[in-house]
Amino acid sequence: MANITKKVSWSSRADESGATGERTPLLNGSEQQNPLSRQPSEGGSVFQIGRLSTVDLEEEITSDEESLRGRPKEIPHTEKLLSLKYESLDYDNIENQLFLEEERRMSYMGFRCLEISRWVVCGLIGFLTGLIACFIDIAVEQLAGIKYQVVKTNIEKFTEAGGLSISLLLWAFLNSAIVMLGAIMVAFFEPIAAGSGIPQIKCYLNGIKIPRVVRLKTLVVKVCGVICSVVGGLAVGKEGPMIHSGAVVAAGVSQGRSTSLKRDFKMFEYFRRDTEKRDFVSAGAAAGVSAAFGAPVGGVLFSLEEGASFWNQMLTWRIFFASMISTFTLNFFLSIYHNKTGDLSSPGLINFGRFQGDSVAYNLYEIPLFIAMGAIGGLLGALFNILNYWLTIFRIRYVHRPCLQVMEAMLVAAVTAAVSFTMIYFSNDCQPLGPEHNEEYPLQLFCADGEYNSMATAFFNTPERSVRSLFHNQPGSYNPLTLGLFTLTYFFLACWTYGLAVSAGVFIPSLLIGAAWGRLFGILLASIPSNGSIWADPGKYALIGAAAQLGGIVRMTLSLTVIMVEATGNVTYGLPIMLVLMTAKIVGDYFVEGLYDIHIKLQSVPFLHWDAPATSHWLTAREVMSAPVTCLNRIEKVGTIVDTLSNTSTNHNGFPVVVQVSGTDEPAKLCGLILRSQLIVLLKHKVFVELARSRLTHRKLQLKDFRDAYPRFPPIQSIHVSQDERECMMDLTEFMNATPYTVPQETSLPRVFKLFRALGLRHLVVADDENRVVGLVTRKDLARYHLGKHGLEELQLAQT
Amino acid sequence: MANITKKVSWSSRADESGATGERTPLLNGSEQQNPLSRQPSEGGSVFQIGRLSTVDLEEEITSDEESLRGRPKEIPHTEKLLSLKYESLDYDNIENQLFLEEERRMSYMGFRCLEISRWVVCGLIGFLTGLIACFIDIAVEQLAGIKYQVVKTNIEKFTEAGGLSISLLLWAFLNSAIVMLGAIMVAFFEPIAAGSGIPQIKCYLNGIKIPRVVRLKTLVVKVCGVICSVVGGLAVGKEGPMIHSGAVVAAGVSQGRSTSLKRDFKMFEYFRRDTEKRDFVSAGAAAGVSAAFGAPVGGVLFSLEEGASFWNQMLTWRIFFASMISTFTLNFFLSIYHNKTGDLSSPGLINFGRFQGDSVAYNLYEIPLFIAMGAIGGLLGALFNILNYWLTIFRIRYVHRPCLQVMEAMLVAAVTAAVSFTMIYFSNDCQPLGPEHNEEYPLQLFCADGEYNSMATAFFNTPERSVRSLFHNQPGSYNPLTLGLFTLTYFFLACWTYGLAVSAGVFIPSLLIGAAWGRLFGILLASIPSNGSIWADPGKYALIGAAAQLGGIVRMTLSLTVIMVEATGNVTYGLPIMLVLMTAKIVGDYFVEGLYDIHIKLQSVPFLHWDAPATSHWLTAREVMSAPVTCLNRIEKVGTIVDTLSNTSTNHNGFPVVVQVSGTDEPAKLCGLILRSQLIVLLKHKVFVELARSRLTHRKLQLKDFRDAYPRFPPIQSIHVSQDERECMMDLTEFMNATPYTVPQETSLPRVFKLFRALGLRHLVVADDENRVVGLVTRKDLARYHLGKHGLEELQLAQT
Repeated sequence: MANITKKVSWSSRADESGATGERTPLLNGSEQQNPLSRQPSEGGSVFQIGRLSTVDLEEEITSDEESLRGRPKEIPHTEKLLSLKYESLDYDNIENQLFLEEERRMSYMGFRCLEISRWVVCGLIGFLTGLIACFIDIAVEQLAGIKYQVVKTNIEKFTEAGGLSISLLLWAFLNSAIVMLGAIMVAFFEPIAAGSGIPQIKCYLNGIKIPRVVRLKTLVVKVCGVICSVVGGLAVGKEGPMIHSGAVVAAGVSQGRSTSLKRDFKMFEYFRRDTEKRDFVSAGAAAGVSAAFGAPVGGVLFSLEEGASFWNQMLTWRIFFASMISTFTLNFFLSIYHNKTGDLSSPGLINFGRFQGDSVAYNLYEIPLFIAMGAIGGLLGALFNILNYWLTIFRIRYVHRPCLQVMEAMLVAAVTAAVSFTMIYFSNDCQPLGPEHNEEYPLQLFCADGEYNSMATAFFNTPERSVRSLFHNQPGSYNPLTLGLFTLTYFFLACWTYGLAVSAGVFIPSLLIGAAWGRLFGILLASIPSNGSIWADPGKYALIGAAAQLGGIVRMTLSLTVIMVEATGNVTYGLPIMLVLMTAKIVGDYFVEGLYDIHIKLQSVPFLHWDAPATSHWLTAREVMSAPVTCLNRIEKVGTIVDTLSNTSTNHNGFPVVVQVSGTDEPAKLCGLILRSQLIVLLKHKVFVELARSRLTHRKLQLKDFRDAYPRFPPIQSIHVSQDERECMMDLTEFMNATPYTVPQETSLPRVFKLFRALGLRHLVVADDENRVVGLVTRKDLARYHLGKHGLEELQLAQT
Repeated sequence: MANITKKVSWSSRADESGATGERTPLLNGSEQQNPLSRQPSEGGSVFQIGRLSTVDLEEEITSDEESLRGRPKEIPHTEKLLSLKYESLDYDNIENQLFLEEERRMSYMGFRCLEISRWVVCGLIGFLTGLIACFIDIAVEQLAGIKYQVVKTNIEKFTEAGGLSISLLLWAFLNSAIVMLGAIMVAFFEPIAAGSGIPQIKCYLNGIKIPRVVRLKTLVVKVCGVICSVVGGLAVGKEGPMIHSGAVVAAGVSQGRSTSLKRDFKMFEYFRRDTEKRDFVSAGAAAGVSAAFGAPVGGVLFSLEEGASFWNQMLTWRIFFASMISTFTLNFFLSIYHNKTGDLSSPGLINFGRFQGDSVAYNLYEIPLFIAMGAIGGLLGALFNILNYWLTIFRIRYVHRPCLQVMEAMLVAAVTAAVSFTMIYFSNDCQPLGPEHNEEYPLQLFCADGEYNSMATAFFNTPERSVRSLFHNQPGSYNPLTLGLFTLTYFFLACWTYGLAVSAGVFIPSLLIGAAWGRLFGILLASIPSNGSIWADPGKYALIGAAAQLGGIVRMTLSLTVIMVEATGNVTYGLPIMLVLMTAKIVGDYFVEGLYDIHIKLQSVPFLHWDAPATSHWLTAREVMSAPVTCLNRIEKVGTIVDTLSNTSTNHNGFPVVVQVSGTDEPAKLCGLILRSQLIVLLKHKVFVELARSRLTHRKLQLKDFRDAYPRFPPIQSIHVSQDERECMMDLTEFMNATPYTVPQETSLPRVFKLFRALGLRHLVVADDENRVVGLVTRKDLARYHLGKHGLEELQLAQT
């Protein structure tokens, strides 16, 4: 697969940087360097610093190779590609004159007010996220209640009369119908709302612009979709999507307007830029985690683990505030709903219940057992991920039409119902219906009166309740066969389900699988004849198994530990959970990456990890950078700018601004950096200087004009520039970022990477010792390098 | 105070940068800028880029002003000064050719091994920190047990016989004697071991080199000192010092050698630089918190809150590992000590005991009460800090001789005993000695048989036990008067005690004060006639009060919340504790800073906060930087280097390296940066090129040579360079950092700050658009600016 695509689309490379033309992939082992002695050659005012004389030659070679192999019509998705369709977010402030003037005008009180409004926004984010979680919870509970009640009545009716296949059909039909609703919304209206949204939020916080990921429409589809998929009985949870929902709420609230609803509340205009928005989205994601698991600290850690490149105490504290408000809101409204107003004891959507008392204490000699369970979790998780990887590849190739996606979702829903029914039908694990039973829908089926079918507590229930039953039901509530069969079937169902075109999370199914085999493990231990009393509580092993399985699948570390501990409500489990997660991660990483990372890679997203690959010190900025760079003059002809922006073959997003010392033929020096979006706004407002009359024909542009256009800047094609105007000049001095970060060409890749990542940059100018632009480093230039099996590998860039 | 010192020591300014001479303080409002048109003027090979013609003139003015005011003999410490005696740590890798060569030689397996050894080191750090905590705990328990038993027997003897004043004398004498031991060690042998060490570790993680802070001797004194002060009955805790101890252990273990013991284990040589060492010290501090409070997550957050500038997932995970191992080790060995091997239920030195059951649940209408308690905590905390601030000023001025310090500590110990005794003596709060009582040393005194003195449970006990009693004793165990008097006296005792020349922490006293008035608050609430049953449990209010008081004093945020939650072992208290800490911080910050920050300021440490001051956008690198800069040539005369390093009036630590294009008179371009420590090693190894014979006379220098000298580089005076050698040349190419970060002169202060802080820099070169060095920004240049009452203020630099 990787072989087929090896040379594809090299020649059509175009990215954010100023690079056109060819680069020499590392894999070829060729030592050719970008020629450095290139001189400005283009007339007019665009400096093409460096022109690649080898472009045509290499393009021919590429074509030859491709024709030899039979040029593929469609580029298959593989993780060896890096897509060029993703743009970066700019987490570095654009410090141009306008910005600095505004900041300098602002008094200390102004900054205080800003800080207060940040807190207000975070409070709002937490509140709304909590409300949404509450809505989802109540809707799922009500609708699932109706569904299970209908099916239960039906089953009870036909158990005696015979003809249970009608019940099966009813169940399968109900599931499919509900799932179809959700799948149609996702597949036809907003495909980005599929899945849990966690990979997308990871990417956003990493600095990648995923189109439509934080729009209102996405939120609506997500919320409705997740209700449908959970009610539809799929092997999914409603927790993962809460993180995405929180992020969308944050992005919406913090901007003080909705582009979808065409309402601008004229509030929070200061926050209309990537830097501020990112901070709020972090808070939103944390609030989502907090609402989902009742884990405010875990939420903060999740946001930091996934997003933060620069830890700021006040920001963290605000994120924590949003998290707390979110879990508190959810808790409060749920307590009203449950007629226990003011009782704040159910802090999240999923609640593991209280692990208290002596039976749950663990002892030293159990630690090795926990570690072994972690290893099992890692193995099973890796298996899950590999299966899901193949499935996803298959889906990308063959199931990419929306109607096919809807049909697949319906099929899965029907199969889930059928499998569940079969398992329950053939199970003969009857348990007495004691007074302390807390089954919502106990199915008697073929059991004696006063008993219920144990398999049904696992299958005929929302997954959250099943998890809780596995953790807390009395020892002896399940027999080992039931648990074994359940683990097996649910594993494959969950694996098949993840990646469907429905909104759904993988947390709960993972926990459920883990809890099942964990409980099984506990029961088996208890059956060992020696002092059996000490293994009395299988619920403890269910918890450890759940942690192991979840850790083996998603490979989160600190944040997951804290989430699990907070959801358990018991700090004593900190050490075993950490050990288990650590073991699961180590074992799992040996085979394959985490599920989210796999999906990010399959999307060919230029994701930047924490550090540059370990063995990349021998690469320098010179090899990494894109060159030649399209530069603009500080005072530039409008026509040139329009032409540069319209050049679809390059489609650059950032342009170094250079200035030539007048009267000399010295090469132009770097004096700033300007973004495509800024140029678009300038062109739209006709900020031109007519040379003939030498006066300004435009009103003074304000930062507000840029903020109003943010974040959906119009394309260059929508801006009409007359022939006369093309002859005007444009003065970029005020608008360019006059102090872009630069590095010399000899800087090593890890150093470039660190600067880029720590400051959340989008463009990093490479300058020579005369301060002339020689190249530009963008996210894709850095994300290309990764450690493969054969040492450092270079991913290829494609337009897919 | 600030007035007196306003102009002192301007002329003797010398810092890490290349700046000599005068700068115009912002406060003067003068608009004078550093002249930018300066040309290199010195002959030879040292470029003095820019020479300040105004130096002498201004020096005279300064002298005049000083003589007018009567030149003070001793500069009083104020927070308006920034000391020049502190150097920075260099958290940016020195990427010179040697380093790059080593990295490039290293295989992927090499990096894996490094990673594994990092984990091993972290495990060791956790283990040793846990052991130390265990040692302290057992030692304190044994010694305090003996002491209290002796005094109790004595009191019981004299209660009947009369003459209790003899008991008082005995108690006071015992306390003083034990405290004297601790104070002598601290005051005479290692003054840096005084206090909790948290401010010092904050500074270290912030990037400031505090001399002797992570030495073995400091650790020994710290451990013995803290045992003495706790056993000596001072109002102190043993938790704070654990953080410092953990950090020392980390710094020691990670270097694989001990300079004090003159042992080099030839291990972990790769970690012998500031960057790596810092990471391990973070882990050590986290392990310390974890051991102290049984709060591994809180420990990680503490390290991150105080130290991290760049969040790295693997690093965080390692820190968490160290924390977990630490609490686990402590737990395990304590369980053996308590003959309950394998029972892992007491995870930290302080354990708040389990808050379980219905009585501790809180309800919605209690939230405003909690917030009110937070406000009280903020007020009391601010009062505490202000009092302690005055006391510290007083101590700096008048109690700076070691023997005076020892005497003060003894006085405090005696007074503490006397006050305790008086309180117990005059208290008539007798409580029945029920079967469930858990007092270690119940004092009967004048109570009836079968009763004990309630005041004694608070005073006649180690503070940890007193805290636990306040949290968990039955309602009615204390009467309000007892609690009120206890709060009052303990408040002043604790305030007086903090800052003494003994090793001691402020966490436990703060918790104790807060728990006392919190319990009082709870009792008063319960006395409100309406449905009194709901306020049944004063222990809950004691916990909230403790959090409020501690938050009001130290002003930590997220980490303290998590520490409290973990120590409580109950996640439900997360929201109230957060609200309380937030309120306490907001209220407290209105009056005065946190206790640690006050002490850091009083030490005039150039501490960098998270962001540049809000209103500093109108400052640019041009105003901030130090200029002129002493630069070195790439191939430099040895004599010049020796002279530059020997210049005690400047005492620079970093030198930009420049290169002049031969045959031209163009100004020299920046080509690297070299540190004093590197030059010292080069001089020591005589890496000279004899021009006459034009060959190398030295063996090739390795990175190992630099690592062996790290971190105690010899002073320049200890290196002898003959007259012949002075004429040799030194080639710096291989050793300088060839790609230092640079910024243009127009860069705004917040931007410079962000770059500097995010990357943990020590020197940041300011270059003009021809890539010539015009200035150097160091930590002190940035730390100078802070937001005062009248907007942006500039601190002054002094040699104190």
